[in-house]
Amino acid sequence: MKLTILGCHSATPRINSNTTSQVLEIKNHTFLIDCGEGTQVELRRNKIKFGKIMHIFISHLHGDHVFGMAGLISTLNLLTREKDLHIYAPKGLKEVITLQMKLAASWTSYQLVFHELSSNTSELIFEDDQVEVHTIPLDHRVYTNGFLFKEKPGERKLDINAVKKADIEVAYYQKIKQGFDVVNKKGQLIANNALSKAPNPPKSYAFCSDTAYSERIVPIVENVDMLYHESTFLEKNSDLATKTKHSTAKQAAQIALKAKAGLLILGHYSTRYGDFKVFQEEAQGIFKNVELAEDGKQFEV
Amino acid sequence: MKLTILGCHSATPRINSNTTSQVLEIKNHTFLIDCGEGTQVELRRNKIKFGKIMHIFISHLHGDHVFGMAGLISTLNLLTREKDLHIYAPKGLKEVITLQMKLAASWTSYQLVFHELSSNTSELIFEDDQVEVHTIPLDHRVYTNGFLFKEKPGERKLDINAVKKADIEVAYYQKIKQGFDVVNKKGQLIANNALSKAPNPPKSYAFCSDTAYSERIVPIVENVDMLYHESTFLEKNSDLATKTKHSTAKQAAQIALKAKAGLLILGHYSTRYGDFKVFQEEAQGIFKNVELAEDGKQFEV
Repeated sequence: MKLTILGCHSATPRINSNTTSQVLEIKNHTFLIDCGEGTQVELRRNKIKFGKIMHIFISHLHGDHVFGMAGLISTLNLLTREKDLHIYAPKGLKEVITLQMKLAASWTSYQLVFHELSSNTSELIFEDDQVEVHTIPLDHRVYTNGFLFKEKPGERKLDINAVKKADIEVAYYQKIKQGFDVVNKKGQLIANNALSKAPNPPKSYAFCSDTAYSERIVPIVENVDMLYHESTFLEKNSDLATKTKHSTAKQAAQIALKAKAGLLILGHYSTRYGDFKVFQEEAQGIFKNVELAEDGKQFEV
Repeated sequence: MKLTILGCHSATPRINSNTTSQVLEIKNHTFLIDCGEGTQVELRRNKIKFGKIMHIFISHLHGDHVFGMAGLISTLNLLTREKDLHIYAPKGLKEVITLQMKLAASWTSYQLVFHELSSNTSELIFEDDQVEVHTIPLDHRVYTNGFLFKEKPGERKLDINAVKKADIEVAYYQKIKQGFDVVNKKGQLIANNALSKAPNPPKSYAFCSDTAYSERIVPIVENVDMLYHESTFLEKNSDLATKTKHSTAKQAAQIALKAKAGLLILGHYSTRYGDFKVFQEEAQGIFKNVELAEDGKQFEV
């Protein structure tokens, strides 16, 4: 599982800092998460193939998380895309994109499939045989969701030496991977755990931006391998965080601690701070394993 | 009069090339012309002060000319702008911007004044005591206008030595600048052209993008000092130009020649061409004084 930060700064794009957008590569998927202005250029810069993106997840309709959508959709059209594009976003995005396309008299060569979100409780919004995606209802000035990306538990791993030694028919191998005990050629029942090993633990990533401090999300993101939690402010500006429904670095760390996250990634920094190292230091007072998001940085599990 | 090219490439922004946007500084004005995705970043890169922009002119509602508007409007809000912002654009932009603001629950701290355009004949859309702006109806796939920016003729210049020698009351100086003959202290009528010199010739700039070859624009842009005319294609792809209602470099030169323009600036190149020098060479076969637009390049008259 690999996360690439395309942009992680708040409010407005600048010469050397982009607004929120991330790419999560998990199993066979390349998920785009949020799409601030200029995201299509950052996709190019980070050599992410446009054609691989089938699903886009938009947290909320503030410009710094969504103003790159119309341009990206247009560019995919110019690239003569044919595959469906699924967009999971708060209700309203379909209307604005449709209006922009109508005014440009430009219809897409591919199917745009909008999944409009409006629930205030966590829901499963995407699932296939390898991955599932759940919303994480957040507490911001407009309707906002984070997203939890979870691998499904894989098959058990065949212990090929043990299987051969136990003299088991090849036809049973799939059953062993699925966790069943099987009978060998001599008619003996062999316990599954003597023939297979546990699968790799399923990996998970939670994206939480933008949000005020909200313990409601803890049960949803519990035990996640990586937690991206916005930290627009430092604790010394907690009044601004409260007022604008954002979080401080310390608050992000409190969520990571309560959720027993593997790694906390901070981002969505306000431009009022010159040095972002202070965000990491503030968070590490509460939770040890903290990394700073930076444009172009990658995190792998 | 100074023109700064923020972006001049067609279709989609790329790592090192921006879509259409220009800044024209003329008299006391800083006019923004078109606003593709990422324009706000290019304004920063070119050190154009956001607060100086009072008027934005949008040619048409294709994304590569307008998708930067919502972000720019939001950023001006975050900068706590108070002054009115005038936007001259095809009918429809107001609706889409209003919808985007509504969905973001973000209203501007300043007044957005939309001047929605729908006429198919040239009209005067802005005028003060120094400058006027006229639309140039263009021929594209959607409703499109170019813009003609013209200085008004200034006052005549007082020939201070001649005025003193002719023994004229200071009270008459303003009349002389306005072109009147005046009477000196001895009661003699002195001809204006003995007391003043012609003003600097008023400067003018015409922006024509996007458009098929259209001689209808020639009378409007006649004798313009600088003509920006799109050249998406080379003549060898004139079939594509016709099909998509764009122009070739040669066609742009034909317009410049017929209009007796001072300088032709080419731009809006298709990314299919690697070397843009060929556009200049093709145009120079028809019209001598040709320059290539490039991101960040400036042209002064």
